[in-house]
Amino acid sequence: MRLRRVKNVEEKILEYNDVIVFNPENYKGKWNTLFNNSNPIYLEVGMGKGKFIRENALKNPNINYIGCELSTSVIYKAAIETRKLGLKNLYLLNYDAFKLNDVFCDGEIDKIFLTFSDPWPKSRHEKRRLTSSNVLDVYKSILKEPKVLEFKTDNRKLFEYSIMEFNKLGYEILELSLDYHNSGYENIITTEYEDKFVALGNCIYFIKVRLK
Amino acid sequence: MRLRRVKNVEEKILEYNDVIVFNPENYKGKWNTLFNNSNPIYLEVGMGKGKFIRENALKNPNINYIGCELSTSVIYKAAIETRKLGLKNLYLLNYDAFKLNDVFCDGEIDKIFLTFSDPWPKSRHEKRRLTSSNVLDVYKSILKEPKVLEFKTDNRKLFEYSIMEFNKLGYEILELSLDYHNSGYENIITTEYEDKFVALGNCIYFIKVRLK
Repeated sequence: MRLRRVKNVEEKILEYNDVIVFNPENYKGKWNTLFNNSNPIYLEVGMGKGKFIRENALKNPNINYIGCELSTSVIYKAAIETRKLGLKNLYLLNYDAFKLNDVFCDGEIDKIFLTFSDPWPKSRHEKRRLTSSNVLDVYKSILKEPKVLEFKTDNRKLFEYSIMEFNKLGYEILELSLDYHNSGYENIITTEYEDKFVALGNCIYFIKVRLK
Repeated sequence: MRLRRVKNVEEKILEYNDVIVFNPENYKGKWNTLFNNSNPIYLEVGMGKGKFIRENALKNPNINYIGCELSTSVIYKAAIETRKLGLKNLYLLNYDAFKLNDVFCDGEIDKIFLTFSDPWPKSRHEKRRLTSSNVLDVYKSILKEPKVLEFKTDNRKLFEYSIMEFNKLGYEILELSLDYHNSGYENIITTEYEDKFVALGNCIYFIKVRLK
């Protein structure tokens, strides 16, 4: 999610400690104590401004959600909107996806969503893509069986790359759509990007895999 | 390839025994004697009217080609066009893909092409699709290592299904394009269908897999 840098964001963001978890390492292995229940925990990696995860959290009060976003300016925008809802089942995390092992125990997460991740189109940036093998190993370790990850994007090359990565690693494809909004899926919860691209008539690609 | 049935085609086709092999079982394990050389043999399964395989054969005289087509009316059209070219490296086969084990020995084929195969969209017809697991087992047995198959289609649902079949069977995806004509491939040899669909602006899907 591209966004202009917010002025003094490092300072401003500190006011949002009711929705952003600033010491996430302290909750490793005990996120259920933060949510104060033992419901499943779903994690969105690269949530952007957070429309998708907020709507998921509103719709499914018996599932806990964590939205992770590396950009401080972007998570700040997400925090403002999240606070307005007063949700008990959603927290935000300003963290690097590649380091999620420092924040979650093995098997602590029930499902991971990747939505419209940065494509990092240049080959030399391949390792930064959120579906590259290094970070998939991180997801695999923190996921509980059956280790399900859902990914959607409008970026063709990133999607081609991702299918090949999943295949190379032996992951099982559970669902696949090359035109997600015209494949019979009902009640799709969209991201900000998705609304924009669907309005332009772009195809959205979707895949659900098991990181076995 | 849908085509009106040709009148008396069973009789007419017999005149084309210079391009159609009518007793293919007799060549099992010795197709090189028909071509009179030991060049690699590439097989197109469901070649339709045969534009794709003829152009391949013209372009690559050191590769032998066999075009297989189940419909007698369709292969008749292919035979008329093929005879005009007088090629030494192309023969046609009026045969059922599911029975190719009766015609080829294990490892006798160097590459298989599937092009715009019938999608058989109904679930109850899944087993007829030319990328269903039963027939993939046939291809796997007649292919020589590294057992490479190339498949292209404009049919989204057939392509989604095929990726999932390849993944389920543990086949390795070597190349993948969700927009084959806009992915940097050069000198693409097209089928009759492909020309028509590209002119309409449709995406062509392409995958190259190793049936390991």
